[in-house]
Amino acid sequence: MKLTQWSDYSLRVLMYCAACVGREAPVTIHEIAAAHGVSRSHLMKIVMTLATNGWLETTRGRGGGVRLARPARELTVGEVLRRTEPDFKLVECFDAAANSCLLDGRCRLKTALQGALARFLDELDGVTLEDLVRPVARARVAPGRAGRVPIRLSPALPAAPAVPAEPARRAPAGRRATR
Amino acid sequence: MKLTQWSDYSLRVLMYCAACVGREAPVTIHEIAAAHGVSRSHLMKIVMTLATNGWLETTRGRGGGVRLARPARELTVGEVLRRTEPDFKLVECFDAAANSCLLDGRCRLKTALQGALARFLDELDGVTLEDLVRPVARARVAPGRAGRVPIRLSPALPAAPAVPAEPARRAPAGRRATR
Repeated sequence: MKLTQWSDYSLRVLMYCAACVGREAPVTIHEIAAAHGVSRSHLMKIVMTLATNGWLETTRGRGGGVRLARPARELTVGEVLRRTEPDFKLVECFDAAANSCLLDGRCRLKTALQGALARFLDELDGVTLEDLVRPVARARVAPGRAGRVPIRLSPALPAAPAVPAEPARRAPAGRRATR
Repeated sequence: MKLTQWSDYSLRVLMYCAACVGREAPVTIHEIAAAHGVSRSHLMKIVMTLATNGWLETTRGRGGGVRLARPARELTVGEVLRRTEPDFKLVECFDAAANSCLLDGRCRLKTALQGALARFLDELDGVTLEDLVRPVARARVAPGRAGRVPIRLSPALPAAPAVPAEPARRAPAGRRATR
């Protein structure tokens, strides 16, 4: 069972931008590409989709780049995956068009898997971008939620104020979106 | 996000056998192949693996076939998926050998996804083969568990006693396993 590479990279871009909240200059695709060793053209497509989803603001021209369009504490991993994964058709019978299973509609497997999928996404609905990039001492993880292992941010992320004291709350408001 | 076709068919084979508990003659690969429109050679590999895992007993020769090696109420979907899925490496950083993410070990995404995966499997640890094939009136699904939508067994499953009143409890004990 895997998520798509598209979702993986989408989350990495959003986490990078979340860690950069508070920085004056917007994040450039070039720096994300360099940090993750991913091609710029591939990242460009991902960034455009993230902007279309209303999660990133893009600014053009010299000094342009991307920023989170919403506070990191308001965007959850569950919300991201619901829109970056092409589907959650765990087994054939989830796909009405492709389904050839003769048990369809008469067995409980599909319902059981739907229940498990709901719990998977419910868990990730409780994890925000801010939770993922928050410095160790400030980690806020609800009891029973994931993310209980404290970690430090990557050295690949930009230097201070890339990891500000209040990342999401210090995000400048009213930035002009070009899309 | 998908499970493998191998897991899908493994579950179908086990469910078929669970629905046949109480039948005198063992299930043949031919009849499962016909019921699901899957090649016999593909099913043969699956059946051999299920037997190796201790979930099926196989008997050779004329009148031979396969049966559940354990009561259907004792085998859960979670247990099956843990052994039929090749892995649960949801994103690149789950795989130490292939991981190139520079954030590895320093971000909380992996931990968050591990938590969600644990909830996914936990849900399926509460669903037995018996739950999946039990007749509607006898369905036993724990509160909060999946499988709340009652269904009837497939007409593709064998005729009575394929859906016995007590499928698992009427399983003959001590059947000779040839593997």
